[in-house]
Amino acid sequence: MRVEQTRGETVEVWHDVHVAVVDASGRVVAGAGDPGLVTFWRSAAKPFQALPLVEDGAADHFGFTSEELALACASHSSEPDQVARVRALLAKIGCSERDLLCGPHPPLSERVARDYAARGVTLTAVYSNCSGKHAAMLALARHHGWPTASYTQLEHPVQQRCLDVVSRWSDVPRGAVTTAVDGCGVICFGLPLKRMALAYVRLGGTAEEGASHRPANPAAAHPATGAASRIVGAMLQHPDLIAGDGRPCTELMRAHPGRLIAKVGAEGVYCALLVREGLGVALKVSDGHGAAAVLALGAVLRELGLTPQPAALAARPILNSRGETVGELRVQGPLERYAGTNGDSPGGRRGGAR
Amino acid sequence: MRVEQTRGETVEVWHDVHVAVVDASGRVVAGAGDPGLVTFWRSAAKPFQALPLVEDGAADHFGFTSEELALACASHSSEPDQVARVRALLAKIGCSERDLLCGPHPPLSERVARDYAARGVTLTAVYSNCSGKHAAMLALARHHGWPTASYTQLEHPVQQRCLDVVSRWSDVPRGAVTTAVDGCGVICFGLPLKRMALAYVRLGGTAEEGASHRPANPAAAHPATGAASRIVGAMLQHPDLIAGDGRPCTELMRAHPGRLIAKVGAEGVYCALLVREGLGVALKVSDGHGAAAVLALGAVLRELGLTPQPAALAARPILNSRGETVGELRVQGPLERYAGTNGDSPGGRRGGAR
Repeated sequence: MRVEQTRGETVEVWHDVHVAVVDASGRVVAGAGDPGLVTFWRSAAKPFQALPLVEDGAADHFGFTSEELALACASHSSEPDQVARVRALLAKIGCSERDLLCGPHPPLSERVARDYAARGVTLTAVYSNCSGKHAAMLALARHHGWPTASYTQLEHPVQQRCLDVVSRWSDVPRGAVTTAVDGCGVICFGLPLKRMALAYVRLGGTAEEGASHRPANPAAAHPATGAASRIVGAMLQHPDLIAGDGRPCTELMRAHPGRLIAKVGAEGVYCALLVREGLGVALKVSDGHGAAAVLALGAVLRELGLTPQPAALAARPILNSRGETVGELRVQGPLERYAGTNGDSPGGRRGGAR
Repeated sequence: MRVEQTRGETVEVWHDVHVAVVDASGRVVAGAGDPGLVTFWRSAAKPFQALPLVEDGAADHFGFTSEELALACASHSSEPDQVARVRALLAKIGCSERDLLCGPHPPLSERVARDYAARGVTLTAVYSNCSGKHAAMLALARHHGWPTASYTQLEHPVQQRCLDVVSRWSDVPRGAVTTAVDGCGVICFGLPLKRMALAYVRLGGTAEEGASHRPANPAAAHPATGAASRIVGAMLQHPDLIAGDGRPCTELMRAHPGRLIAKVGAEGVYCALLVREGLGVALKVSDGHGAAAVLALGAVLRELGLTPQPAALAARPILNSRGETVGELRVQGPLERYAGTNGDSPGGRRGGAR
């Protein structure tokens, strides 16, 4: 599968896409390119980074609302309401914006970015799309009595708890999960796409419970907990907080209430959980192209039966500086259906070795 | 050859690069990926689009300076001096900014873009990086008495003259040159990378005249004219007008005065002429990534002996939102040397067919 950009009748640019679709039994049932490609999960790991908050009792201790849990899983648009909620969350745990170690950046929503630029809003750490995740990590540290000043470091128990959870839900041994520094300064996790998809399908516990077959792979036995149900429930309940107005995650989840979770990651990563179908999806555009990843997700979900889809996920015209349509960005190539493939090998290409 | 972006020790993103290096005899002497890849030349075709201006006597008729010829070949930065020169050129041919049909866009130089945004400068057509090319096309139309209102259309004699020149210098039959609408509204040309490289090496006529061997390929017999010498001379003389302060084309040409022409094209295209070595270079990053194309050009020219190079072409650190270095953008894989390859086949992959 690739996303191609045409000019006239000619393909001028193309983006290779790797996809893994895993069912509730842990089988890789469909995919494209290399479903075993190892890459960084980036922000698509946020639901798992939020799990310790619930599992360890911090969410209850601080009386977190479902909105606050949703923001912990979000790559939000820095909308005024979203920023206000993160500030309130910080106050609730006895922290302030000064404890956040995420760097600021222009809002992911162009509309919000333009608005703030026009109004001269100073973009501080709380405006980071990751500020909900960082505030949740501070909450976990506060709850356990761990130091808050170093929560982004690999050695810090907050990051070690996240690594635990990532390893457990993806069935990749701790030592086999690659770690590096994320765009916002915390630890990010590298693992095969098919294992990301496995973790996502496991989040939607009920699907497997309702399945008529036994798991093909004992390792895929479900680690779903009440904690996962609360995280999934919060995300399903608040699509507006997961990304923001007009952005693909939010618009997809709004279009199909309660039916899916869609979560973007930086550098061309996208993950999804189809609740009703009991399917987890993970994809990566090898050159990191974000718009291509959105279109690829749309195509994959369409082939898995999720229609209609919002305009944000459709093929789009390429305009020149005169506003003329000179080409198109579109998906090419099918999602391949695999028969009898077992998802139990954690291997796969590393970092795009050819 | 590819340009990879690392995070920690892991390759997170990669950009495939296709390269053709052609010597003065027309042989493809080195390359990477598919040197026959067919793609659009985009702005790297500008020296050839400027040739009719000189060949047809328009440059002399209007008394064009070498600065004005350089701007006709430029993807300029919309620097105040560059914009003023294009305005003067338009006045010289009895046209005004209102005759330009290029669309406006933010300046290609981030510094200039920030400056204009801060000062509230209204970006009109003359600020387009292509305004020199458009003004030169208007000059050609004026000189011949052709209508000026439709100079961007494929059927217009200006575009037909450009197609003639592209076909002649690249040795690709007119009918085999793909056409489409460029980012600025004129016609752009699709042809194999190795034919772009051939055209570039032919621009530097003296190199071949000084070569000791006969052309291996009669089709590579040199079409260089006094017109080409004037275009090349203007570009070599005015690196500051070809792009702008801090941009790779300008900085490379400033670092090696008189020794090369480097010309960027949109969507990951770069071309160069090494005057002393008598080599033409054309490359394309298949996903259109501009920064990757710059690094790839640096690596290719380094392997061809062009050192030292300005910092703009070196591997660069990847910073996160906290300003921490989290990885690197760097070139991987060699330029392959070919023995006995003949560049006379105009074929090659079209639009990245796999």
